Amino acid sequence: MKLNLPEGIHLLHGADYNPDQWLDRPDILKRDIELMKEAHMNCVSVGIFAWARLEPKEGVYEFDWLEQIIEELYQNGIYTILATPSGAKPLWMSEKYEEIRRMSDHMVRDWSGERHNHCYTSPYYREKVRQIDGALARRFGKHPGVILWHLSNEYGGVCWCPLCQKAFRGWLQKKYGTLEQLNQQWWTTFWSHTYTSWEQIHAPVANGERGTHGLWLDWKRFTTDQVVDFMREESKAVRAEAPELPVTTNFMNYFTEYNYFKFKNDLDIVSWDSYPQWKAGDNGDQAVSFALWHDVMRSLKKQPFLLMESTPSATNWSPVSRLKRPGMHLAASMQAVAHGSDSVQYFQFRKSRGASEKFHGAVVDHYGGSDTREFRDVEALGRRLLEIGEVQGSNVKAEAALVLDVENLWAIEGAAGPRNCGMHYLETLQAHYKALWKMGVPVDVVDEECELSGYKLVIAPMLYLLRAGFEQKLRDFVEQGGTLVGTYHTGLVNENDLCYLGGWPGAGLMDLFGVWHETTDALYDGEKNSILMEDGRRYETSELSALIHLKGARTLGTYGEDFYQGEPAFTVNEFGRGKAYYLAARADEDFYRDLYRGLVKELEVKHAAADELPEGVEACLRETEERRYLFLQNFSGREAEVKLTGAWERVDTGEPVKQAVLTGYDALTLRSSSK
Amino acid sequence: MKLNLPEGIHLLHGADYNPDQWLDRPDILKRDIELMKEAHMNCVSVGIFAWARLEPKEGVYEFDWLEQIIEELYQNGIYTILATPSGAKPLWMSEKYEEIRRMSDHMVRDWSGERHNHCYTSPYYREKVRQIDGALARRFGKHPGVILWHLSNEYGGVCWCPLCQKAFRGWLQKKYGTLEQLNQQWWTTFWSHTYTSWEQIHAPVANGERGTHGLWLDWKRFTTDQVVDFMREESKAVRAEAPELPVTTNFMNYFTEYNYFKFKNDLDIVSWDSYPQWKAGDNGDQAVSFALWHDVMRSLKKQPFLLMESTPSATNWSPVSRLKRPGMHLAASMQAVAHGSDSVQYFQFRKSRGASEKFHGAVVDHYGGSDTREFRDVEALGRRLLEIGEVQGSNVKAEAALVLDVENLWAIEGAAGPRNCGMHYLETLQAHYKALWKMGVPVDVVDEECELSGYKLVIAPMLYLLRAGFEQKLRDFVEQGGTLVGTYHTGLVNENDLCYLGGWPGAGLMDLFGVWHETTDALYDGEKNSILMEDGRRYETSELSALIHLKGARTLGTYGEDFYQGEPAFTVNEFGRGKAYYLAARADEDFYRDLYRGLVKELEVKHAAADELPEGVEACLRETEERRYLFLQNFSGREAEVKLTGAWERVDTGEPVKQAVLTGYDALTLRSSSK
Amino acid sequence: MKLNLPEGIHLLHGADYNPDQWLDRPDILKRDIELMKEAHMNCVSVGIFAWARLEPKEGVYEFDWLEQIIEELYQNGIYTILATPSGAKPLWMSEKYEEIRRMSDHMVRDWSGERHNHCYTSPYYREKVRQIDGALARRFGKHPGVILWHLSNEYGGVCWCPLCQKAFRGWLQKKYGTLEQLNQQWWTTFWSHTYTSWEQIHAPVANGERGTHGLWLDWKRFTTDQVVDFMREESKAVRAEAPELPVTTNFMNYFTEYNYFKFKNDLDIVSWDSYPQWKAGDNGDQAVSFALWHDVMRSLKKQPFLLMESTPSATNWSPVSRLKRPGMHLAASMQAVAHGSDSVQYFQFRKSRGASEKFHGAVVDHYGGSDTREFRDVEALGRRLLEIGEVQGSNVKAEAALVLDVENLWAIEGAAGPRNCGMHYLETLQAHYKALWKMGVPVDVVDEECELSGYKLVIAPMLYLLRAGFEQKLRDFVEQGGTLVGTYHTGLVNENDLCYLGGWPGAGLMDLFGVWHETTDALYDGEKNSILMEDGRRYETSELSALIHLKGARTLGTYGEDFYQGEPAFTVNEFGRGKAYYLAARADEDFYRDLYRGLVKELEVKHAAADELPEGVEACLRETEERRYLFLQNFSGREAEVKLTGAWERVDTGEPVKQAVLTGYDALTLRSSSK
Repeated sequence: MKLNLPEGIHLLHGADYNPDQWLDRPDILKRDIELMKEAHMNCVSVGIFAWARLEPKEGVYEFDWLEQIIEELYQNGIYTILATPSGAKPLWMSEKYEEIRRMSDHMVRDWSGERHNHCYTSPYYREKVRQIDGALARRFGKHPGVILWHLSNEYGGVCWCPLCQKAFRGWLQKKYGTLEQLNQQWWTTFWSHTYTSWEQIHAPVANGERGTHGLWLDWKRFTTDQVVDFMREESKAVRAEAPELPVTTNFMNYFTEYNYFKFKNDLDIVSWDSYPQWKAGDNGDQAVSFALWHDVMRSLKKQPFLLMESTPSATNWSPVSRLKRPGMHLAASMQAVAHGSDSVQYFQFRKSRGASEKFHGAVVDHYGGSDTREFRDVEALGRRLLEIGEVQGSNVKAEAALVLDVENLWAIEGAAGPRNCGMHYLETLQAHYKALWKMGVPVDVVDEECELSGYKLVIAPMLYLLRAGFEQKLRDFVEQGGTLVGTYHTGLVNENDLCYLGGWPGAGLMDLFGVWHETTDALYDGEKNSILMEDGRRYETSELSALIHLKGARTLGTYGEDFYQGEPAFTVNEFGRGKAYYLAARADEDFYRDLYRGLVKELEVKHAAADELPEGVEACLRETEERRYLFLQNFSGREAEVKLTGAWERVDTGEPVKQAVLTGYDALTLRSSSK
Repeated sequence: MKLNLPEGIHLLHGADYNPDQWLDRPDILKRDIELMKEAHMNCVSVGIFAWARLEPKEGVYEFDWLEQIIEELYQNGIYTILATPSGAKPLWMSEKYEEIRRMSDHMVRDWSGERHNHCYTSPYYREKVRQIDGALARRFGKHPGVILWHLSNEYGGVCWCPLCQKAFRGWLQKKYGTLEQLNQQWWTTFWSHTYTSWEQIHAPVANGERGTHGLWLDWKRFTTDQVVDFMREESKAVRAEAPELPVTTNFMNYFTEYNYFKFKNDLDIVSWDSYPQWKAGDNGDQAVSFALWHDVMRSLKKQPFLLMESTPSATNWSPVSRLKRPGMHLAASMQAVAHGSDSVQYFQFRKSRGASEKFHGAVVDHYGGSDTREFRDVEALGRRLLEIGEVQGSNVKAEAALVLDVENLWAIEGAAGPRNCGMHYLETLQAHYKALWKMGVPVDVVDEECELSGYKLVIAPMLYLLRAGFEQKLRDFVEQGGTLVGTYHTGLVNENDLCYLGGWPGAGLMDLFGVWHETTDALYDGEKNSILMEDGRRYETSELSALIHLKGARTLGTYGEDFYQGEPAFTVNEFGRGKAYYLAARADEDFYRDLYRGLVKELEVKHAAADELPEGVEACLRETEERRYLFLQNFSGREAEVKLTGAWERVDTGEPVKQAVLTGYDALTLRSSSK
Repeated sequence: MKLNLPEGIHLLHGADYNPDQWLDRPDILKRDIELMKEAHMNCVSVGIFAWARLEPKEGVYEFDWLEQIIEELYQNGIYTILATPSGAKPLWMSEKYEEIRRMSDHMVRDWSGERHNHCYTSPYYREKVRQIDGALARRFGKHPGVILWHLSNEYGGVCWCPLCQKAFRGWLQKKYGTLEQLNQQWWTTFWSHTYTSWEQIHAPVANGERGTHGLWLDWKRFTTDQVVDFMREESKAVRAEAPELPVTTNFMNYFTEYNYFKFKNDLDIVSWDSYPQWKAGDNGDQAVSFALWHDVMRSLKKQPFLLMESTPSATNWSPVSRLKRPGMHLAASMQAVAHGSDSVQYFQFRKSRGASEKFHGAVVDHYGGSDTREFRDVEALGRRLLEIGEVQGSNVKAEAALVLDVENLWAIEGAAGPRNCGMHYLETLQAHYKALWKMGVPVDVVDEECELSGYKLVIAPMLYLLRAGFEQKLRDFVEQGGTLVGTYHTGLVNENDLCYLGGWPGAGLMDLFGVWHETTDALYDGEKNSILMEDGRRYETSELSALIHLKGARTLGTYGEDFYQGEPAFTVNEFGRGKAYYLAARADEDFYRDLYRGLVKELEVKHAAADELPEGVEACLRETEERRYLFLQNFSGREAEVKLTGAWERVDTGEPVKQAVLTGYDALTLRSSSK
């Protein structure tokens, strides 16, 4: 199901809105509407933390105030994204029913307080949530001002209570069938940890079992599944009453405690909360890392997503809260749109007077006026979104894919191995991604459950754990003409962290890459080796050196130092109609740049920039059947000029553009005359 | 009530004395008296940790040994400061009555052990303390050798037990009257934390409520109030039996877990334990920071205080225990007297043979003789105190006041804001204070409950939280001709951490300073900006930049860098007959030096030195109706010369002095011929 | 009892072997034997973590599989070191009997999991262990393939449960007899901690008693005694059934949580697990520190020991796992033999497929073949061990002794003193040791319970705590002509951490050293002082400066800086027929080098090298009645040449050798023609 946008609404512009904090100030509620309109807002997220107002006593619902708010907004052309209130339990509830409060990994139950900390298993909590979700849906599900469900808020965290652990045992029984199978996969003969009854299984905790990695991995998987199940119950509750409204939930940035890929099938629309920490000076690297996560969000459903939260100025929970420099609000907001967002929204509309987020940036300050930097930046952005509304609905079509598998991440981090001080899986992915970003290559981010057909280039660094038949997908992809880049630390274990026997990369990948990875030398921070290429180029390597033997592959580069000097460090293997590259060591930025520049050219991978873009500038493509949109964002803090090929014009003004000049922090959106 | 000093006793010189550890060694007890006399001691603090000797079994008091000690001391001209023993519970008691042992913030009860860790609420402990305090007072309250009560020892710490939490709820009911009022002030609609019954309120803990800052602040306030109440019960118990004896309790250095300003009305005399960590080389900054805390102690009651503990050599609880270099014992001890102490006392007289403080510096070492560095330093200091006894009773009269409000400190630290990595409230106060210290300006330290009349200059940096009507006191002070220096981060919240609406500084201070503080840019450590003054001088700034708009004030300096270059950074506003300066950014040492040098000159603020003193040297004034005393202390480690204006003579020798020359670490006390 | 080696077996070569993980893979078990033989292995340690296989349900023993394994090994010339399985409890047991799971110092009981974490007091666990140990001994104690008992595995850790605490109280009653005695020794009058009943005593914990150092020390002692008692029960159980088999247990490196010297009388043979972390480049310092610990192991019983575990490549539990560079496996393994090991064994033979140690280096990788670096290194080493088999049984005879007293270490670390940021007792011992190591001086490591007769030189740095009459042994040793080197921080407390009165060094050592140590100046990291010698040489000192006065000694060096410049820093005292040196400050490497070079020459202490060896090269002597063996190991990573005096020939080839040339990392074993 798609978002059904009201007539005349294109890109969404809005904020979390908490009128429940100001019900005793009708003057302020009135002023809010005026300020929203002044800022060109067309939607707000309401009710996220309002449970205590919606159900002040057990079983007593008070929804009239909310109806008045939604109606007033609607009358003023502002649409409502309506939240289910499960993110924060009312105090009367957490005090009365202790089972809804989580237990930590010390098996100590939380006291009441904070938020996002309910037990996902508690039958009582699930029932209370089902009831209020249903009641809200009954009352508001058909209101013309309500356009989307915002399920809960930033699902997060883990509970170790007995109810959760019991559910975990059930999950394991379903997965493994027999204890024999579980014992085999978890290799419990190690240290005499053979389970002889299901009841002997406990979640991994610091003062219990930590060394059984299969247990750890399955506990992580169970946690995701349990949260997805909780969310599914919420979506069922609202869909039962309002089947025509789509649902989303807001994800978080760099959040890998859960596997977000497991949520995608239960959501109609993906949305997320993006909080880069912009500094003064060059913000290129910060931009790369958020570009990657915007791409994750878009890739989950391969369709436009929503930027559900961001801040107009600064957050208040970082060590240091630098204000956004002039132009940065435009650049950062447009980055989201450039990567596929159909909205720019904020946390929050008006600052709370008290409690922990009272100094978090918002559209309206405690001061109350619209003559502030924050407000002016928001207003200007709102105007820009109106001007470029036509991009709404266009999508990103990528010919390159990067494999980011969260279960693989968990496994790498859970295993004691060559560099316990840091394997840097995500950093490594980002290093590969950056090389493509610098050329404006649209990239999908996939995991091991995704399909690979349709791509020209697949990049799969550090694929330690293989699951879901991904090894076969990789073989098929290359056999049918695809180009694959793999690296050290690939194909070591099966989905339960059980090592492949017979040599790495296992599960048939030795054949695909044409190398045998015998062992790994780990380097201390600061230690270096190098790759010497056939043509004499030399790149630095660090952290890990896989010692490999050729089994059919051809050497493209060798180690420059140490006792394995001269041995292969970078190889390629012809396999079927395609090629599989194998990189044995973590390389420097220049290596990735040269490698992908060559591959993009050779494979004619779609990209927005002829060659490298100016430092700190990104170029993104969205497209419809008819046209392409080119989004340029400058994060460098310096004026930058981008040379364009083809005919482009500004979307906002219609002016033709030959050379795009961007100020310190800036953004420009262009459209092609035709595709 | 004042300390009633016996005939012939002027400045006190003595130590904590624990004969209860040596009752089986009469030879040592006898030797103690000889050594005390050799060191020119005239008083000791007795009984601090003697409860297990005083009440070896429940209800059985054994006081005879103590009487013998007190009598023997008295016969030898040594007076007793008698402690109530509540600082350390006997083991039989903590084992029998678990309620007297604290619970930590994890709700886990302490086991027996350590000290200063009783529950301040426990009715049983309060009763046991009341009984033994009363019994001690009955027995010794009229002994001519006893001159002062030493209530407990270094009150400290917090208890989270159910008894304390129940008392906290009662305290809240008294403060707020209704839950509606509490919910409003704590802004509990945020995250649905509305309380619907008093029983739902718990103390803030890591696995419970942390984000409700009003709760956090009130819990801190309650803790102080509960300890003061405990102390008040102790003072009542001893005063009931010995109404003519004054009471003190010994405070700690840099201790802001409680608000010491709340203790002052229940004490006759303020005393404290001062443990600078002197190093080799220049100790100027360490001296500044202890100068400030001596001034806090004197300012609490605006009368001379007592230095109750210090060490002749080094403590044993620091990462590294450097010995006091030659001369430092004199300089450090005289610093206390210079700032208003009528005593120099030590922890402790004789080192314990075992347990955790056996290597803590003391007058008498395990060695036992008087031919040690420690003993000779103490003896020399004792001689000096005898020679300058006439300064006793003279006081410091300040024309400048520095606002140090502990509740404001708590609020700044509790709130998540622009620099969670360090707002540096105390460091900022010390930076302002240092500029005055370098000119020998006597300074009172006041909090928001103090009066401001009588001062020429009031310095109130980072006055984030306003309470007790202090905003009105500030307005009155300036209106009537005073000069006020305020800074960024002022006037953001009311006493319950609820933000002022309508613009900062709130509560009427916008009018007073003539500026509107729109927002704050926080800088990372190492990042800099600057203030450019009208006359071209330039000062570095760091950490925080308030972006302000003039609302009547005049600009004295502007920002030198960044996107707010040229905007006001330092302003002054004429208000009534006075002036209010507003400093928008944290400035460097030169700025404060120049600012206060100018203001001291312009306002003719009393000060001891014409211009700046040599680096690391301080000059302090004490005065009586008739004369002034000038105390010079050199902490630089280098010889230093101080030029004097007026006629001065040494108090110890009577010699006239024109140029004071001080060796590496040194102290010199002068008197004016007349005032 | 000695190890009874089968005919034709000299040095042992083998590994931990866990066939219980592969019982469903007879092909792999078969291949294991082939690979062992290829690697010249003659013994394996079996059954260490096999309890769950040996007793799959309570009371049901299944030993047949083990018999088959032992028999098969034996048939192939491979002997078994048979483990008792107490190191890891089966899950069914820890789930059923919670008392066998430890409690942490927070009094929280562990959940099932991990290993080496049973309660040493639990009567149930002791009984279960006794039963299975007895059953194993009955079944296998007389098997010709079984040559040694491997009691449990790496005993470690502490339990705070009520059973342990009760046992602790009994232990104290036995030690002190009366509470009066205990109160006196622990100096409990400090802070009113006088015990009035035994039940009031609890183990030291973070939220209880920490400051009573006597309690802390006795708890550490009790812990060791309780573990020794547990081990003794295990040895009794196996000896009852198989009295002719010797017992060992495998110690750990740098493990001072227990006092290993207390274990020696209950073991027939000492063995240990040695895991140096070799890096690239010069590994000299790592070699020194493991040389020292090899010497500890040999010194415990003054007879050859066994290297029970080591890794052929790298461990997997360090921050970074660098592979052993070429040659290092030989050098590191031969270092063990050089210092007295009669074996080289590994953890483990074949890598586990899963769980926490699956990436720990092993002889056989998951790959399974013998064409790997790891395997080839092991095979080559096995060949070398065969070639030099004749050294087996030869011993090290030392004329120098270094005092390393674990109780002294505990006391230094437990006491709050001059440098809580680091007293560096072990580092200091190693600094002294290194000077001897560089000359190839054989060194015994002794503690305060050992005898000193027979040595020429005794080195006793930082002998803070005196016990077991060691002060008398030191006096006797010097009086009878020995040379003693002592330092600052010596003779401060008695065995219960109670300070000596009357001056340091106490207990008569003032007389021996001829100095009075008045006080100690502690230096911050980075601060320096120096010793200026009579002849003008100057050495740097750091960390601690004892200020001493001569009481008969003669000054050899004085302080070069600070207020104690010119005061004695290094002295010598003639005492009886010997000499006692006293070093007042922690000195630099050059000082120790010159000091011990002089003393070795003067006293004609046995040593392997004429002068200093090349950097990073060690030379060790083992001897029999007839000959000397000279072991040279190069850890420098650079080629090195050692000049030899006397006639030597290679043990492996019989070639005569005049100049020994060693490659980057290398080892060479020579024998003298005759002694």
